[in-house]
Amino acid sequence: MTERSLLVVVLAAGEGTRMASRLPKVLHRIAGRSMLQHVLETTSAAGATRVAVVVGPDREDVAAEATRVRPDAQVFVQRERLGTAHAVLAARDAFASPVDDVLVLYADTPLLRPETLAALRAPLADGAGVAVLGFRPADPTGYGRLLTQGPELVAIREEKDATPDERKVDFCNAGVMALSGAKALELLGRIGNANAKGEYYLTDAVEIARADGLPAVATEAEVDEVAGVNSRIQLAEAEAILQARLRRAAMAGGATLIAPETVFFSADTKLGRDVIVEPNVVFGPGVTVEDDVIIHAFSHLEGAHLEKGVSIGPYARLRPGTRLGAGVRIGNFVETKAAIIEAGAKVNHLSYVGDASVGSGANIGAGTITCNYDGFSKHKTVIGAGAFIGTNSSLVAPVRVGAGAYIGSGSVITDDVPDDALALGRGRQAVKAGWAAELRAKRTKPKA
Amino acid sequence: MTERSLLVVVLAAGEGTRMASRLPKVLHRIAGRSMLQHVLETTSAAGATRVAVVVGPDREDVAAEATRVRPDAQVFVQRERLGTAHAVLAARDAFASPVDDVLVLYADTPLLRPETLAALRAPLADGAGVAVLGFRPADPTGYGRLLTQGPELVAIREEKDATPDERKVDFCNAGVMALSGAKALELLGRIGNANAKGEYYLTDAVEIARADGLPAVATEAEVDEVAGVNSRIQLAEAEAILQARLRRAAMAGGATLIAPETVFFSADTKLGRDVIVEPNVVFGPGVTVEDDVIIHAFSHLEGAHLEKGVSIGPYARLRPGTRLGAGVRIGNFVETKAAIIEAGAKVNHLSYVGDASVGSGANIGAGTITCNYDGFSKHKTVIGAGAFIGTNSSLVAPVRVGAGAYIGSGSVITDDVPDDALALGRGRQAVKAGWAAELRAKRTKPKA
Amino acid sequence: MTERSLLVVVLAAGEGTRMASRLPKVLHRIAGRSMLQHVLETTSAAGATRVAVVVGPDREDVAAEATRVRPDAQVFVQRERLGTAHAVLAARDAFASPVDDVLVLYADTPLLRPETLAALRAPLADGAGVAVLGFRPADPTGYGRLLTQGPELVAIREEKDATPDERKVDFCNAGVMALSGAKALELLGRIGNANAKGEYYLTDAVEIARADGLPAVATEAEVDEVAGVNSRIQLAEAEAILQARLRRAAMAGGATLIAPETVFFSADTKLGRDVIVEPNVVFGPGVTVEDDVIIHAFSHLEGAHLEKGVSIGPYARLRPGTRLGAGVRIGNFVETKAAIIEAGAKVNHLSYVGDASVGSGANIGAGTITCNYDGFSKHKTVIGAGAFIGTNSSLVAPVRVGAGAYIGSGSVITDDVPDDALALGRGRQAVKAGWAAELRAKRTKPKA
Repeated sequence: MTERSLLVVVLAAGEGTRMASRLPKVLHRIAGRSMLQHVLETTSAAGATRVAVVVGPDREDVAAEATRVRPDAQVFVQRERLGTAHAVLAARDAFASPVDDVLVLYADTPLLRPETLAALRAPLADGAGVAVLGFRPADPTGYGRLLTQGPELVAIREEKDATPDERKVDFCNAGVMALSGAKALELLGRIGNANAKGEYYLTDAVEIARADGLPAVATEAEVDEVAGVNSRIQLAEAEAILQARLRRAAMAGGATLIAPETVFFSADTKLGRDVIVEPNVVFGPGVTVEDDVIIHAFSHLEGAHLEKGVSIGPYARLRPGTRLGAGVRIGNFVETKAAIIEAGAKVNHLSYVGDASVGSGANIGAGTITCNYDGFSKHKTVIGAGAFIGTNSSLVAPVRVGAGAYIGSGSVITDDVPDDALALGRGRQAVKAGWAAELRAKRTKPKA
Repeated sequence: MTERSLLVVVLAAGEGTRMASRLPKVLHRIAGRSMLQHVLETTSAAGATRVAVVVGPDREDVAAEATRVRPDAQVFVQRERLGTAHAVLAARDAFASPVDDVLVLYADTPLLRPETLAALRAPLADGAGVAVLGFRPADPTGYGRLLTQGPELVAIREEKDATPDERKVDFCNAGVMALSGAKALELLGRIGNANAKGEYYLTDAVEIARADGLPAVATEAEVDEVAGVNSRIQLAEAEAILQARLRRAAMAGGATLIAPETVFFSADTKLGRDVIVEPNVVFGPGVTVEDDVIIHAFSHLEGAHLEKGVSIGPYARLRPGTRLGAGVRIGNFVETKAAIIEAGAKVNHLSYVGDASVGSGANIGAGTITCNYDGFSKHKTVIGAGAFIGTNSSLVAPVRVGAGAYIGSGSVITDDVPDDALALGRGRQAVKAGWAAELRAKRTKPKA
Repeated sequence: MTERSLLVVVLAAGEGTRMASRLPKVLHRIAGRSMLQHVLETTSAAGATRVAVVVGPDREDVAAEATRVRPDAQVFVQRERLGTAHAVLAARDAFASPVDDVLVLYADTPLLRPETLAALRAPLADGAGVAVLGFRPADPTGYGRLLTQGPELVAIREEKDATPDERKVDFCNAGVMALSGAKALELLGRIGNANAKGEYYLTDAVEIARADGLPAVATEAEVDEVAGVNSRIQLAEAEAILQARLRRAAMAGGATLIAPETVFFSADTKLGRDVIVEPNVVFGPGVTVEDDVIIHAFSHLEGAHLEKGVSIGPYARLRPGTRLGAGVRIGNFVETKAAIIEAGAKVNHLSYVGDASVGSGANIGAGTITCNYDGFSKHKTVIGAGAFIGTNSSLVAPVRVGAGAYIGSGSVITDDVPDDALALGRGRQAVKAGWAAELRAKRTKPKA
């Protein structure tokens, strides 16, 4: 099967009015990726040789997302909205060179799994002309029913045309279809629009194929996989389904999620074994976590790599470009960005470490801030191995603190500090005895 | 219908023993408002001309909440607890001037919608004497059943008096009642207490009305609307129902809630279109958000207005009096209070901006703190447009930093800074070579 | 009943392969305690006189946890895995001295309540030889069925041996068993291994007892109580069950949990009456909270005691050794550790108070940090009653700030400050007029 070539046509021209959004529907995100990206990633995982994406007029943003994710995608514009078969035929040129299988997917149905698409395609290798994806919803009312005899798909019956017995069928049409590459264009070309709305329906391909003696089959998908997104509520539902899937996978892989329902993953999050994730953790894109890491509550990670034995949070915020060496400890109310922090270093409290490297075993005191921005551009801070940065220090970049150096609390460091040196940059303490008592007396004195 | 005058009697005298609280039950809050306030707001939305609130003895706190929310409310005290009809009659004086419709509500049933009350009142305009609100619980056991013939309410049958057939009825009495204003006082006056508990039951008005030939009707409410609150668990359930309603409304209005179940609204939160709310966000009272705003995870907002294109969080805390101009960026571990921050300004990390105004395009460095409190009173900080405040600075109010001025990192600013000036207020850096190495040697030397 | 002596044998030798973990299964935690600890605490609450724990070979870590929790526990090693009866007999020596009742529990079944164990033991006092715990799962498929006549347990029938009628029985074997102390060893010794797997099954004790004329009985437990943990997903499910229990108990005790599903307790958390817990709060071990405390959203507490009327958060992090006096206020992005903070003191913003005592009524300004670590050891900061610590101050421990003293903003305090004195430790402000304008001109000048 993996040898057969596959053209996937992704229909992405829907208007999405019910989203009440200026953003095209298929660019709305779940688990940190646009719905279109999810569908394109799935087609790649399912072995698509070629991908055609059909977009609405003036949808350069959708086209750009398609080629960003899959640079070889061909983009076609559907100028009028005359039904699903019409939409597929907008990509007619994609059928020019021969292909074994054709798959028609919808960019607003982002939860299909590659395994399901493989199962859907399988009968084409055995001579089927058309294969339709079905599902069994809790309440089939309103859906087209798949009428089958064994694996064979006899007809797709719309609700309004169904007999009472046919309405009892709970196997419903999910809209997703696979077609024999050799026959697809011909079948699609014969679909007419002699119906109430005057539209060209992809599902008519089943009847046409059968009339030609080409077998049609139906394959069942999980209900959750075929959930389409037409509103923000359905977007949230799709997000919930995908998050549940990601959480189960993380736990099956040997991570403990104390309260899985409060952990939010990106589609590309990778967790090692014996990673513990406390409640309320958000993973943005690009996070990889090695074994034996503990992520305390209320942490937020994005574009970060955590080596073995790291501990972060609670309230740690790791931003893109963060790399934490083995055993590093990032504590509460700490933000890192473009920061390489080497093995065993600690940033335990209320700090900002940005555009910086921190050597192994260094200790960054509470309230330390790397002043990486001077109002014009960003500069780098380099902290050597074993350095000790006193609390409430400001390291004004570009600046280098040497290995083993010691910065006194409350210092502003503007010049490089040699290895093993002490640097102080702060005022000297002065005391005025009794001053506070006098102030209180003055401030609380009854007005004359 | 909107022309008809309406007296609402709100019964708020329940003791709420099961709450195990010193606070009267009806003052417990859901979505940031007391239950009493919810009911009073609903009566106002339903067009109440007059409102009477019946409270228990020595419940000045409940009375005060009633008049705070609805200053024209008349408060009556029910001195003895002798049943619902007795409670309504405690408000007898409220019936003195004529009114078209009377509605009896319960302050511990905070989820009724104005539309439902309108539907309940509607039959009174057509001559009904009494209208009763019903609902269909999953398990009707224990509830009084509404026995109907078409829209007509024939009787309210208590569980213990019901025949087996009547027990199968799943349409139950919610307790809420509308009465013809012309008849209400007479009907109520005829209710007796010849029953096991010796109490006067409002529901008896149905039988009395029908005996007089006055039609009684029943109107159905959603189960969720009639949920009463008698315990903290039920309080949490009511909160959950209301939050679900608020979340659905926000999404229907064009906001994306990535994980709706983790977003907590106040009853008055207003979100624009294409607002994105990440997981784990809490909206306290008084928040309005314009279009295209992104609220990152773990943010907490209260009394704040966010203009178009603002981005806050993660971990942003906006306190009352915060106004953020278009495109403002508030980052992590930042607290604002009584702060006017103008278009395009940035406060990205670990800062406190209180009692302050920040001009457009200003950049407030990490760790900046406005020292608004001197131990006696609060003072104001004014930061001009385009100013740059270096990291870890303290701005000791009252103080003014001019437009385009530049504050060096780690400065304590006690005096006004002119426009376009540089101000520094910090110690000069000094270095002692080898000091840290010596210290380490000393501290790690084996004790003699 | 409480007079009867009780030996509990806890089987803790399971391998837990499905956990995909280096940590032994029974050491995985729910609500902050290992599963083994949960079971041992339950046995203690159920009145265990003696406890024997059976562990696998080379499981010193499990043995250590057992004796940590219950120092008098006897630990036995099961060298081969030959079934549950074989495992119990590994603890044969624990039966040496006479005991009234014997109870066999599983360390991976952590949710049983002491009341349920008491109910299970009760029939032994009336002469039963064996008592088996049963439950009624939604789907009994796969479980052994308990065949009963009244309270009498006639047989335990494995699924594969059951008749169609027996399969309809939904009362299933939970595995937990109580045995008469006088008979236990003899019954166990007679269990054979003539079965497919060649293992010794504890459940065979029922048939053997009955053959001897010793009555067997079955007692029902709630489904939730008997949930066993074999995978990370089941671990999360057990956590969820326990958290739901803890939340209900907190609410029944008079605490308001606005969104109970977002509050995570430790097994030992204690909340007073009229405590309000906002959404998203995590309680680590060792937290006790007195009446009328409010815990705002996103707070994290561990090893802390909060007296009456305290208010913390949002985003407060209390670490072990924190004690907050009446009315203390801890605000956002504040961390405390080993900190005694006396009545009425305030730490409102962005501070770290560690290894410190703060006198009553003191005000700790935003950005204050106690510098408790000098790179070698920890030192203590003492702040007197009524002291005022200006913002962004660093208190370099060991140091003492006197009662009523006043520390200027941005100071580094290295020496003790007398009562009522003012201390400053910062640079003096200097201004260079026009500097910022010149810098901007220079930095934005087109390159020559």
